[in-house]
Amino acid sequence: MSRVDYSLYLVTDRRWAGERSLAEIVRAAVAGGVTCVQLREKNLDTREFIRMAEELLGVLKPARVPLIINDRVDVALAAGADGVHLGQIDMPIAVARRLGPPDWVIGVSAESLADAVAAEQAGADYIGVSPVFATPTKTDTAPPLGLDGLRAIRAAVQTSLVAIGGIHSGNAAEVITAGADGLAVVSAILAADDPQAAAQELRNIITLTQGEKDE
Amino acid sequence: MSRVDYSLYLVTDRRWAGERSLAEIVRAAVAGGVTCVQLREKNLDTREFIRMAEELLGVLKPARVPLIINDRVDVALAAGADGVHLGQIDMPIAVARRLGPPDWVIGVSAESLADAVAAEQAGADYIGVSPVFATPTKTDTAPPLGLDGLRAIRAAVQTSLVAIGGIHSGNAAEVITAGADGLAVVSAILAADDPQAAAQELRNIITLTQGEKDE
Repeated sequence: MSRVDYSLYLVTDRRWAGERSLAEIVRAAVAGGVTCVQLREKNLDTREFIRMAEELLGVLKPARVPLIINDRVDVALAAGADGVHLGQIDMPIAVARRLGPPDWVIGVSAESLADAVAAEQAGADYIGVSPVFATPTKTDTAPPLGLDGLRAIRAAVQTSLVAIGGIHSGNAAEVITAGADGLAVVSAILAADDPQAAAQELRNIITLTQGEKDE
Repeated sequence: MSRVDYSLYLVTDRRWAGERSLAEIVRAAVAGGVTCVQLREKNLDTREFIRMAEELLGVLKPARVPLIINDRVDVALAAGADGVHLGQIDMPIAVARRLGPPDWVIGVSAESLADAVAAEQAGADYIGVSPVFATPTKTDTAPPLGLDGLRAIRAAVQTSLVAIGGIHSGNAAEVITAGADGLAVVSAILAADDPQAAAQELRNIITLTQGEKDE
């Protein structure tokens, strides 16, 4: 899949979905302007993980929004997802590239400048820069890179950068200005009372800020 | 891989390996007569799981003993293992068959006669009949099938049966007589002071009992 639009990248997490179904929230988020979705689930049986991926694909394929699976290449292959997102302790990118179809989108998490350079050299389609700010969603992360860390990575690599960690409408513009091609959010959309409105607000900030960058 | 010898089937589990390396125990077990090995790990990072599979393949390939990976089709594909073992909550067998190479060995766990019949109809290469007896190794299992349950499954399906759950040298002969083509063991070998001798003892019982069945 070429020319993926990473600009508003939703990372799903059942824990934030509460009593609503994940598919329902994702559908609303896409209506609000989400351009890419990652399904991230830990401690889920393989069969149920595949079923959830298939359910999300039912929402995303008609909208032409790609679905990326976190870590699990088997789940991505089984469900026919558009690619995988790999952490530093997941499958090496070269192996995932060999196992997946040629047009797979493969993203790699980078928690440092060195990680980002290595991910680019390994052929990542995009790099998840993580965490930019402190975040309540993940507790096992490295220290925040901050906007300075993001700028340093932007200066060092050409690959698309998706910033993640503590991003919300209050800081979205400065993250894009610092060099991110996309904003990855979890709670800013999943925990919102109105996920569509939350996505739309971020979408508007992204469109405005990218317009300013291009001038 | 055709004509797999399932007769002495070791299921590995780091928790029983103690301070010895799993590869070291597996090497001793194969020297004692283990004919098939399943790597079963939960809560292990994907990269480390692949590394462990590759380490075991380094021991098993020269001995021409197949390595089967529990649940994780991605790990099996990445490491080049000989197949996968699928539980009822893992990937459906038809999907694993599509993703793996044509000669992959795919085993399916059956906790009932109905499971076993379904696994045969789905094309399993072997059926893991589980648990035959109560076992300390897994605590989330169905009630024991007993020798009567094993005999009922033997009467209903033609597929190779690997019996698992509470099997040791004291009951090995009766499990084979009841219809098992193979005995799967965990603690009987992994927790033994001398894994090679423990495997050899089971190997001798299997050879003797299979000889009596064939007469």
